[in-house]
Amino acid sequence: MAWLRSAFQDELDGVTASLVQLSNEVSAAMDKATHAILTANLEEAEAVISADDQIDELAHELDNRIIEIIARQQPVASDLRALVTALRMSSDLERMGDMAHHVAKITRLRHPGAAIPSELLLTVQELGKTVKAVADKCSEVIANRDLEKALEMEKDDDEVDRLHRKLFEALLDESWPHSTETAIDMTLIGRYYERYADHAVSIARRVYFLVTGTYSEKLV
Amino acid sequence: MAWLRSAFQDELDGVTASLVQLSNEVSAAMDKATHAILTANLEEAEAVISADDQIDELAHELDNRIIEIIARQQPVASDLRALVTALRMSSDLERMGDMAHHVAKITRLRHPGAAIPSELLLTVQELGKTVKAVADKCSEVIANRDLEKALEMEKDDDEVDRLHRKLFEALLDESWPHSTETAIDMTLIGRYYERYADHAVSIARRVYFLVTGTYSEKLV
Repeated sequence: MAWLRSAFQDELDGVTASLVQLSNEVSAAMDKATHAILTANLEEAEAVISADDQIDELAHELDNRIIEIIARQQPVASDLRALVTALRMSSDLERMGDMAHHVAKITRLRHPGAAIPSELLLTVQELGKTVKAVADKCSEVIANRDLEKALEMEKDDDEVDRLHRKLFEALLDESWPHSTETAIDMTLIGRYYERYADHAVSIARRVYFLVTGTYSEKLV
Repeated sequence: MAWLRSAFQDELDGVTASLVQLSNEVSAAMDKATHAILTANLEEAEAVISADDQIDELAHELDNRIIEIIARQQPVASDLRALVTALRMSSDLERMGDMAHHVAKITRLRHPGAAIPSELLLTVQELGKTVKAVADKCSEVIANRDLEKALEMEKDDDEVDRLHRKLFEALLDESWPHSTETAIDMTLIGRYYERYADHAVSIARRVYFLVTGTYSEKLV
């Protein structure tokens, strides 16, 4: 039976490789969406918007492959858990792609104007940098089941929350000189980055649970 | 083998019954959250916030049961598809519960003040009524695989989108007399209702696909 087990292991490895590929693509998508919104770059925003279809397609194909593996291999216990978890991670990654898409759509909507007022550019840049770190660690956590990195992501997520609050504080400052339209854009943009990081952290927690059987929240 | 198949069918029916229960609970939660935010009722908002833990717990138990059924019964083809789809519907329903929770939290945050300015009360009331219809139809679609209702939900969702746009238009009106804080609240509230309805429609589409093998989007 050794060769059978090994063929199955190859299939699991293939699933992991596809999840890592998806994770790398949504990381690149959000990075480009951040650059586009900071520089009001329509061409980059359009590229993110079209790439989202490919991300959805990739996630969809992966889901079908996972279900086909479950049907054919009829795994139980930890192998079945790993495959069901892979389905959930694929769904989280697909949503992360949607968030990059949403950020890009705001860039397009406001073009040739800039969506972000100049005094908030640095905060959004920091948000973009932090979620990039989160997404790149997410790829490593999926690829290597690296639990150190999974715990680091919880801390990065705290930093995302701090920057998100900082955005709101700027909007709520009595001297806020911009339009309600800008306030709406900034509220949505803040939420997209926050949700993006939440999905990545949720992936890290799923991997943590698969490896240890406990939830990371209680440990950090 | 007839009795075995029948025991399995009983288990599938049990999964459906739990999904309907979850759907009814998230419908009640959002209905209460809407009433609470329209009337600035802290007690109701607190009830929604505590009930969300029970909804999460229910979804979590259901997920474990579904995975256990897959492991034990080793279903293939349409039975496996139905169980994987049930996992996804449980996740959609859990997110719908989160949206009700988020609306309730804004009520609590602004209490004893009202989160919603008086001229937008009717629009939010309509939004609440429309998503209640969506969620109640969602229960019927899950329970009876009622495809007529599934298609109706697509139309209800268009109405949610229309009301969502109406909220934004009010915020963007040059005569908008309220604070940025209120604009932020209304932006988030609008998004919570929209996401809530999106998840319900996504459930209807999953059922539609299970029954027909095609996507409903192309038919409406």
